[in-house]
Amino acid sequence: MSASTLNSSIKLSQWFPIANWIKSYNRTDLGSDCFAGIITAILLVPQGIAYAILAGLPAQVGLYASILPPLMYVLTGTSRTMSVGPVSIAAIMIAAALSAPQVVSHGDPLINAMVLAAETGLILLLMAVFRMGTLVNFISHPVLTGFTSGAALLIITSQISPLLGIDQSHCGMNWNCYLDALLTMNSSTVIIGIGSIIALLLFDKPLGKLLQGFGFKQAWITAICKSGPLLVVIGGAVGATYFLDDQQTVKTVGAIPPGLPVISLSGFSADTWGLLFPSAAFIALIAYVESVAIAKVTARLRRQRIDPNQELIALGTANLAASVSGGMPVAGGFSRTMVNFSAGAVSQIAMLVAAVLLAIAVSFFTELFSNILKASLAAIILVAIAPLVKVRSIINIWIYDRADALAEMGTFGGVLILGIEQGLGLGIAITLLGYLWRTSHPHIAVVGEVPNTEHFRNIERHTVATWPSLLLIRVDENLTFANAGYLEDYIYQEIAKRSGLSHLVLIFTSVSYIDATALETLENLIISLRNSNITVHLAEVKGPVMDRLQTTDFVDKLSPGEVFLTTHQAAHRLAKS
Amino acid sequence: MSASTLNSSIKLSQWFPIANWIKSYNRTDLGSDCFAGIITAILLVPQGIAYAILAGLPAQVGLYASILPPLMYVLTGTSRTMSVGPVSIAAIMIAAALSAPQVVSHGDPLINAMVLAAETGLILLLMAVFRMGTLVNFISHPVLTGFTSGAALLIITSQISPLLGIDQSHCGMNWNCYLDALLTMNSSTVIIGIGSIIALLLFDKPLGKLLQGFGFKQAWITAICKSGPLLVVIGGAVGATYFLDDQQTVKTVGAIPPGLPVISLSGFSADTWGLLFPSAAFIALIAYVESVAIAKVTARLRRQRIDPNQELIALGTANLAASVSGGMPVAGGFSRTMVNFSAGAVSQIAMLVAAVLLAIAVSFFTELFSNILKASLAAIILVAIAPLVKVRSIINIWIYDRADALAEMGTFGGVLILGIEQGLGLGIAITLLGYLWRTSHPHIAVVGEVPNTEHFRNIERHTVATWPSLLLIRVDENLTFANAGYLEDYIYQEIAKRSGLSHLVLIFTSVSYIDATALETLENLIISLRNSNITVHLAEVKGPVMDRLQTTDFVDKLSPGEVFLTTHQAAHRLAKS
Repeated sequence: MSASTLNSSIKLSQWFPIANWIKSYNRTDLGSDCFAGIITAILLVPQGIAYAILAGLPAQVGLYASILPPLMYVLTGTSRTMSVGPVSIAAIMIAAALSAPQVVSHGDPLINAMVLAAETGLILLLMAVFRMGTLVNFISHPVLTGFTSGAALLIITSQISPLLGIDQSHCGMNWNCYLDALLTMNSSTVIIGIGSIIALLLFDKPLGKLLQGFGFKQAWITAICKSGPLLVVIGGAVGATYFLDDQQTVKTVGAIPPGLPVISLSGFSADTWGLLFPSAAFIALIAYVESVAIAKVTARLRRQRIDPNQELIALGTANLAASVSGGMPVAGGFSRTMVNFSAGAVSQIAMLVAAVLLAIAVSFFTELFSNILKASLAAIILVAIAPLVKVRSIINIWIYDRADALAEMGTFGGVLILGIEQGLGLGIAITLLGYLWRTSHPHIAVVGEVPNTEHFRNIERHTVATWPSLLLIRVDENLTFANAGYLEDYIYQEIAKRSGLSHLVLIFTSVSYIDATALETLENLIISLRNSNITVHLAEVKGPVMDRLQTTDFVDKLSPGEVFLTTHQAAHRLAKS
Repeated sequence: MSASTLNSSIKLSQWFPIANWIKSYNRTDLGSDCFAGIITAILLVPQGIAYAILAGLPAQVGLYASILPPLMYVLTGTSRTMSVGPVSIAAIMIAAALSAPQVVSHGDPLINAMVLAAETGLILLLMAVFRMGTLVNFISHPVLTGFTSGAALLIITSQISPLLGIDQSHCGMNWNCYLDALLTMNSSTVIIGIGSIIALLLFDKPLGKLLQGFGFKQAWITAICKSGPLLVVIGGAVGATYFLDDQQTVKTVGAIPPGLPVISLSGFSADTWGLLFPSAAFIALIAYVESVAIAKVTARLRRQRIDPNQELIALGTANLAASVSGGMPVAGGFSRTMVNFSAGAVSQIAMLVAAVLLAIAVSFFTELFSNILKASLAAIILVAIAPLVKVRSIINIWIYDRADALAEMGTFGGVLILGIEQGLGLGIAITLLGYLWRTSHPHIAVVGEVPNTEHFRNIERHTVATWPSLLLIRVDENLTFANAGYLEDYIYQEIAKRSGLSHLVLIFTSVSYIDATALETLENLIISLRNSNITVHLAEVKGPVMDRLQTTDFVDKLSPGEVFLTTHQAAHRLAKS
């Protein structure tokens, strides 16, 4: 192989991670993947329809988003088992974005959903170009939990009317109206809705345990249990059609156009792009954070690696695919991925199988899907989403870290009261402010020598030796604009407490970085203390820090102060002088 | 003295720091303060008028802002020598705020300036209540320098037309129009303007050196040199009145209403308050940052202390006083404070003297002030502001720290291109993003034992002993949401490079804090590595960190992993097992 071929093959596998594993793919793998793909497809049909309706879109949009986007991910993603398609949290974000009054007045929600997917895709690709995958770190876990809990609670409340067959959309803040709406509850719908929930709960763990008791294989248990949603949907539709007198009043999904989605690029207006951009940015952020989290969980169980930047590319491409094929923004779905994984998927071929099955379903069976009851879908969403509301986590975090707990509560409350995007923005802002507040109060200690050793410890926690002419201060954090003022105040306070001081040694064991603000503060400190006849010295300065200080005239300004290798050397030389 | 009297006296001196020093105040102090007060008042008159006009307000507004606000600061401020009143940077921010189209359409600029001062004052007091003085740390020195340079450059360009007696305010982006305007230059104005600049430059250092050569006392040198602006103003006015033929075309300040300002609270509309709020927030921030910086410089020269939170109260009160007495937002002025300081001021009594002199001037001499030439004021502003444009600082910072240099350039360019507030906002955003980016890439090292010692060092920088079954990783930063993902990736990469590993020891020497996100990441790491038969241990965990970990079930999750006191203990026990 020549160097250039080698080079291009490296590039190919970098952009299309599928090239890494497809060579060693064998028949056993194919068997496992086909099985897992079928199971996931069975879950995808009701989920796709349910999440499209949750997003305020026609049912077929969710199905379309389950065909081309996962195929793009098959080619470009680094997770072998993640199932990309419509997901619940993104769906409610889409619903919020598309229902904003100024967006509604800008035409067809179908077109708007495609614009949103296109923007989400482009934002993800831009993040990839600038290698901004680390941006997601700025959403801390408490904020993410608070956000998911809040969004899940919003989803739950949104499903009450389809579950009970009532319409309270016109009620606003009029509570009596909700009560009146509740009285119009349709008993057939309620029976189907509540029945579906009970069936789904039974299908989950109890049925699994029962089958385990009968000695079924784990893969088959997964297959049977995870077909619960499909069976509930079929059961509901059949029940409503054949056994109910008042079938007209039980709402169905309604007509779904048969056939594959048409690839199109038309209908994009600059106005809509501008209006939807902020929402797309939030959807991209959440889609990426959730997907990478899911991908990492499954990858680690099999000791595989996820490349976060390649995931940006893969999810970006998937969302662009969703846009041109009439879909909605997509992401990695947690429940589907776990189903795919535990059904034994070894590679993205499973998702290829699922996508082909979805394509067949959309081509030939849409007439059947139109009989699906909205109450059944509401039950599926409720059972899937309820575990995401984690109120206990706030209590646990409160015990460990108040600032994190406040961020989580702020996000949760913000999502419920201010809106989904506003809540997320609030949570991020609280985290950043808390973070800055904390780093602006670094840990600093006055230290002394542990007798008969070369160790120096905090004078407040240990019995140590000190010298009246010498003050030893250890700074336990990098020095930046955020904490330079605090350090300065601390030093002046400690100096004010002492008389007869002639040397101050700053111990930089934990300092890996000094920014321009902190450098200037140190220089001012040195000059100002020299006026008070106190010489400043440094000790234990790390190599890279010293290298950078040497690009400036800092060492001249420090003089006659010195840079000592160890605190021990500094103490023994200065204490005697 | 009973406990309650003692308590109330502590409170009194806390709220009114004047109580701390007024008891020991003596006649010598009074002499020095009177002298310094007179000098500062001589500077205050032209500065007050100049900065009011710079802010787009009538001249008297600047004079009013030099009377009541410094009196409030005398009572409440902790700096003994700071001169509070109109300042140039705030003036251009006020000009920008008041000239926004939607603000202009909301009535009288005089009322708007008072609203702005009231809001600035209230924001500062709110910051004091929530002890948010540390918020100013989020403006790094490079951002502040970039901001000051940009604002100073804007001020300089704004002074070209009064200096040359031209009017190009209608030109917009039409460059030919500027050229045409330049040709309408008024020669008398140009002579007075340029002449004033030359006189001011001579009055500054050259005259000082000359007087020093003659053996004058330093205080008198300051007195004579700092009367330059007043003499330039008088010279210009006299020259224009008596020696010029075309005196009508040389613009003067114009009629100033005589008498003290009237205290009033009327004319505030909710609309204006809302419109001006963001500008007030930026002005409050900059007023506070600049004032505290100035106060600290002079306080340290005399080993006095500044209480940043009390400064928020004092500046807040001063701005409220400016608002009710027909003034404009105020802050500590650098040049005036240095003049006051070097003229020998020992306490705020100097500012009391200056304020009384200003009150007398406003009561009896406004007719004289109305003859002051705009060209003279432009010259005063230009000479005062030119040294604030520090382009060299960008180059110096670029060598030391690219991120800081980018923030400085972004702020500088942002102020010039996007606007004053936008530039400052951009600079703060760049600093925060850079800071987060950096802390999200912490320093982490794989360490080994320095032979025959108990020290452990970076394997890449030192010749150290390692063990195949044991990986020792030292984390050099606090663990937070910002770097938890990076640490996780680092650890998995290092593990992937090695085979036969059975123990991983995380050395927490530099870790003072672990947030909820990092804790969760560590827990997931422990569980995930256990699946790969690698046990995670900790070493050198600080007391406070361990205390907090013990409020959770972390230690149970770590088990059978242990927490070792020292890396040495960990290495020797685990390497043998």
